[in-house]
Amino acid sequence: MGPHPAVAAIRLAVRRVLHDILTDHSAFAVSGSAARGHSRASAAPGPLVLVACSGGADSMGLASALAFEAPKLGVRAGGITVDHRLQAGSDIRAAEVVARLTAMRLDPVESVAVDVGTDGGPEAAARDARYAALDAAAERHGAAAVLLAHTRDDQAETVLLGLARGSGTRSLSGMAAVSGTGRRYRRPFLQLDRQTVRTACLTQSVPVWDDPHNVDPAYTRSRLRQEGLPALEKALGKGVVEALARTAQLSRDDADALDAWAADAETSVRDDAGQLKIDKLFALPPAVRRRVLRKAAITAGAPAGSLFARHIEEVDRLITGWRGQSGINLPGRVEALRQGGRLVIRQG
Amino acid sequence: MGPHPAVAAIRLAVRRVLHDILTDHSAFAVSGSAARGHSRASAAPGPLVLVACSGGADSMGLASALAFEAPKLGVRAGGITVDHRLQAGSDIRAAEVVARLTAMRLDPVESVAVDVGTDGGPEAAARDARYAALDAAAERHGAAAVLLAHTRDDQAETVLLGLARGSGTRSLSGMAAVSGTGRRYRRPFLQLDRQTVRTACLTQSVPVWDDPHNVDPAYTRSRLRQEGLPALEKALGKGVVEALARTAQLSRDDADALDAWAADAETSVRDDAGQLKIDKLFALPPAVRRRVLRKAAITAGAPAGSLFARHIEEVDRLITGWRGQSGINLPGRVEALRQGGRLVIRQG
Repeated sequence: MGPHPAVAAIRLAVRRVLHDILTDHSAFAVSGSAARGHSRASAAPGPLVLVACSGGADSMGLASALAFEAPKLGVRAGGITVDHRLQAGSDIRAAEVVARLTAMRLDPVESVAVDVGTDGGPEAAARDARYAALDAAAERHGAAAVLLAHTRDDQAETVLLGLARGSGTRSLSGMAAVSGTGRRYRRPFLQLDRQTVRTACLTQSVPVWDDPHNVDPAYTRSRLRQEGLPALEKALGKGVVEALARTAQLSRDDADALDAWAADAETSVRDDAGQLKIDKLFALPPAVRRRVLRKAAITAGAPAGSLFARHIEEVDRLITGWRGQSGINLPGRVEALRQGGRLVIRQG
Repeated sequence: MGPHPAVAAIRLAVRRVLHDILTDHSAFAVSGSAARGHSRASAAPGPLVLVACSGGADSMGLASALAFEAPKLGVRAGGITVDHRLQAGSDIRAAEVVARLTAMRLDPVESVAVDVGTDGGPEAAARDARYAALDAAAERHGAAAVLLAHTRDDQAETVLLGLARGSGTRSLSGMAAVSGTGRRYRRPFLQLDRQTVRTACLTQSVPVWDDPHNVDPAYTRSRLRQEGLPALEKALGKGVVEALARTAQLSRDDADALDAWAADAETSVRDDAGQLKIDKLFALPPAVRRRVLRKAAITAGAPAGSLFARHIEEVDRLITGWRGQSGINLPGRVEALRQGGRLVIRQG
């Protein structure tokens, strides 16, 4: 008799990602050892894969599947838990997670305490601190990859958060299955729903911890999870989470293609002095032109995070709705103005 | 003292659209009369603009603004109300709307009764019947345009309905400000919120009728309006409607650009016999390749409405994930298969 379907599902998801990591790793090992004049057969130990684990159901489920699959593929499995120090007793919590991961025979297992700042709000600050700690841990241990337990439900929430920004296709593209320096971060559960992972924990008697932040209405994501998404499902039907996750993938591919087009177009719209030619910009499709303008503004010194769609629309009107308007002020003391047949974007 | 800001806002929105219609119309009139050897000065009557009016606040507000602005611009203003015959007394309702539009000095004013079928569900069937009636009325009266009263809130709902389909950027692009044969349909209120239009009706004492369908939970759009969107606003903040409307515009531009790219790419991926070359398809960005494949499937006879993202993904795997799989069955008895270096998509 095989494992429970939920357990089989999470293991399959992890196995597939480990195969990908091994493929990437052996390509790297071959080119690396070839450069050093060694043959590949010279018994290198298997790559190390770390799981980022909060102690919650999603990441404990991920840890359990990694612990099961890694040895069969010659992969070393370790775990990292980040202590955000935002609640009293978070250090005790982190020590418990370390004990549980160690009991799963992960090695190395480490707890890393971080200081969460305030930049960009509490959720963004916690995320920044967490990824910095994970990056450092991956470097320190020489890990080939770090697995993250984001599920399809997390992806759906991320798409809705992007939708609320109203900044277009890229912001709807959610989280990537593979991201980070050297394709470090992998998200094996991005196509699995949260309930499957929870069921897998339950049937395996994996102890899990429910982070009170996940239901704290002070956090946008919690409100979305507790109220926003359920109401949307009630109105639109049960397929909403799946539809949002599919939207993420389609949007990512669309945004990638349009970014490539814009990068290509950019070279053809500049004159010999590197100035943007109005007539060439005018001839581009609006979607491509806006991307060229956005990139030019960022290159001139406008901070990407403060540059909104409405800024770019205003700059665009210097090209498509020219009525002699004066220069447009953009964040970061950047100015866009029309000079003769050229669009000048510069820092003041 | 000028009008109430809400009244000023709806009038400005209509005035802008009437200017656009006049620009289009005079370009047409010039080329038309030039062809007949007349000069433009030969006193043609102003173009006729019809408002599609249900008697609800949005379209009554639109009618009031059209009645006010049209005479000042030499535009003739008329109105059409469609009697869907879905409720007892709908004919009396339609007669009331005709009386109200006539009282606003619109001329011609007409009520058109339609038979709503069942294709695609009650909302789609009612919409199809309505547009067919409006198209016919526009032709019959020689109207230059038909104004539709969709607001920014309707646009936000349409984006969420598209999101629930999970079929990507095009389905997120909502309603166009200009659409239909000969740019017939215009939506002056697409950037205005519903509350502004209602306030304008109230301050002008325009009588309005609340369609019970708008709050009937049997309709997806009603559930979205009554529960889905408010819950989303509660979770994500008041800017959600605006963000969704902006997403529509950005998605529309992105989808247009990618469709243009796909149309362009299509010619380069076919061999002399018109067959799709696998290697050329492989080299395209996924977003462009998927569009080429979708169009090829539709050309081969697959009905667009039954062709989902997952179908196209499966066909795509014949190119990007080839493991000798057999042909893929698509809706409309269309089959996609790999033959040598070619992708064959044909009806069986």
